[in-house]
Amino acid sequence: MISTSQPDPTKPGPTTVGQLGEHQVIRQIIERLGAAEGRSTYPVVIGPGDDTAMVAVPDGGALLTTDVLVDHVHFRRDWSTAYDVGRKAAAQSLADIAAMGGKATAIVVGLACPPDLPVSWVLGLADGLREECEVVGATVVGGDVVRGDAVVVSVTALGELAGGAAVRRAGAQVGDLLAVRGRLGWAAAGLAVLSRGFRSPKVLADAHRRPEPPYDAGPEAAKAGASAMCDVSDGLVADLGHVARASGVSISIDVGAFEIADPLRDAAAALGVDPLMWVLTGGEDHALAATWPPDARLPRGWLQCGEVVAAGPDGPSVLVNGEPFEGAGGWDHFSG
Amino acid sequence: MISTSQPDPTKPGPTTVGQLGEHQVIRQIIERLGAAEGRSTYPVVIGPGDDTAMVAVPDGGALLTTDVLVDHVHFRRDWSTAYDVGRKAAAQSLADIAAMGGKATAIVVGLACPPDLPVSWVLGLADGLREECEVVGATVVGGDVVRGDAVVVSVTALGELAGGAAVRRAGAQVGDLLAVRGRLGWAAAGLAVLSRGFRSPKVLADAHRRPEPPYDAGPEAAKAGASAMCDVSDGLVADLGHVARASGVSISIDVGAFEIADPLRDAAAALGVDPLMWVLTGGEDHALAATWPPDARLPRGWLQCGEVVAAGPDGPSVLVNGEPFEGAGGWDHFSG
Repeated sequence: MISTSQPDPTKPGPTTVGQLGEHQVIRQIIERLGAAEGRSTYPVVIGPGDDTAMVAVPDGGALLTTDVLVDHVHFRRDWSTAYDVGRKAAAQSLADIAAMGGKATAIVVGLACPPDLPVSWVLGLADGLREECEVVGATVVGGDVVRGDAVVVSVTALGELAGGAAVRRAGAQVGDLLAVRGRLGWAAAGLAVLSRGFRSPKVLADAHRRPEPPYDAGPEAAKAGASAMCDVSDGLVADLGHVARASGVSISIDVGAFEIADPLRDAAAALGVDPLMWVLTGGEDHALAATWPPDARLPRGWLQCGEVVAAGPDGPSVLVNGEPFEGAGGWDHFSG
Repeated sequence: MISTSQPDPTKPGPTTVGQLGEHQVIRQIIERLGAAEGRSTYPVVIGPGDDTAMVAVPDGGALLTTDVLVDHVHFRRDWSTAYDVGRKAAAQSLADIAAMGGKATAIVVGLACPPDLPVSWVLGLADGLREECEVVGATVVGGDVVRGDAVVVSVTALGELAGGAAVRRAGAQVGDLLAVRGRLGWAAAGLAVLSRGFRSPKVLADAHRRPEPPYDAGPEAAKAGASAMCDVSDGLVADLGHVARASGVSISIDVGAFEIADPLRDAAAALGVDPLMWVLTGGEDHALAATWPPDARLPRGWLQCGEVVAAGPDGPSVLVNGEPFEGAGGWDHFSG
């Protein structure tokens, strides 16, 4: 490995990652995570501290997904606590497992950070990762800690279908219904509020800090016969665009179905924006969006909000109230 | 997600990630990786492009490990090609699977990069990842691409034991033999050479750029009854220290067993250093080190180089020629 830069030991302040050293930091993280083997609701055969972890996959198929969060791109350390970042980083990957109709069982975590990062921040991150995993019964089973100028957190989740079939993006059929479950636009509204220098409404800022994906709704949708599903990480229009292209159809969103929640309405009025744009293009709430055969009985909590139609002459697209959507539709990391 | 910074479209040069946009970049990467479903020697049920991948795990237990590589910490883009970085990033995680006695089946990859990174660099990385995976019969099944100031690559590997038991760090017994398989100190020597501004000997520089872990030796060691195993990623003394602590023993290295290869000897003479230090403390070659019951028959290619002894009054440690090792023993990312 290349080059070194160490924090100045004469500087006052909290104990840093550089002062403690990589291996002590890892030991403290593992301690903080608790004994994964035997503690989890799911059989972790080998937990943190070996070359690899080992997780039982009784039904013979493993779901696998990875997501990366970067300081000042996905979070800011002055807006979110380490605990918040841990919750959010875990949620992002755990929601992907739910969006296949699966149940997450384990995550591994990569962390790049500068030597002057306080150890307390790393342990707060571990707390958040652990607690978000506990929501779905998963366990943090391993990781890697390396030096980097920016804080970068990568989370890879392992999951299983528990007997059912995976609900992919490619299954939407013309005539299917569209329904969503979970918040839309809250995280985007929270980000807008924080970006203007406000810390409230707290419920919106918290939605940016810690998404609350409707994890159980994923397997429920699979069981109820959803034909295609995704989580809304980039924005409803953008993510449904992936489903439309994968399925070779167009998807028509009926915006009249959405009731704009009071906090969104109030914040939008205060900021002078249209709250519907948050609903249609805001990502990071990790709601689930799914299509369903017309005779499907939607499980509890799903909001019917559109339908699948034949692709037009220009190919698969997403329509809003029957019209092509004007605008970016969602987040692109590089042209965003 | 927070803030934006775009490359200047008026600047000349190769097409950048920012100009192409996240989703087009991902499409090109997937194209470059080839159709994972059906192509792999291993059954990939769902490849890149959905919320998660799905990989068959017929024997019911998944090995899982993650590693992070950071530009200017683990590689430098002026020393290594994108292809080299891809090979190295994949090798690091694939070697961890081998070090459990397992066989890797799939990887997922996270990439953070600045918008002005040439798309060709990203596709070269994909080539390297794919080709290193092909060495062991694994497949790149998914990933995430996000914006970041530095290039950061995280690789998570999934593997299986194929019926055998995992060889953990905690199994070394007093009286066991120590043996290693693979290169020791070559990557460190290559880094030393590159750090002084030289590009040769090429065989050493290449060892830094693209490790060649002895993947097959992992499952072979498991089958032959190895009692404990790890890969040498931080340095032989440091990594054996993990085995010693996990097993509650000390491990004595007999340095007389090591023949210093000519390129190491020559480079050390030119740089005025002791080549044995590279062998004992150089990481990133991802050799395998294992302990064996005294009556074990070592598989082909393993070099016997020490033994497991009772821990002394100060607890588990690593001895070199019977003496406590003076020095760092290996890499620590933060005090390195």
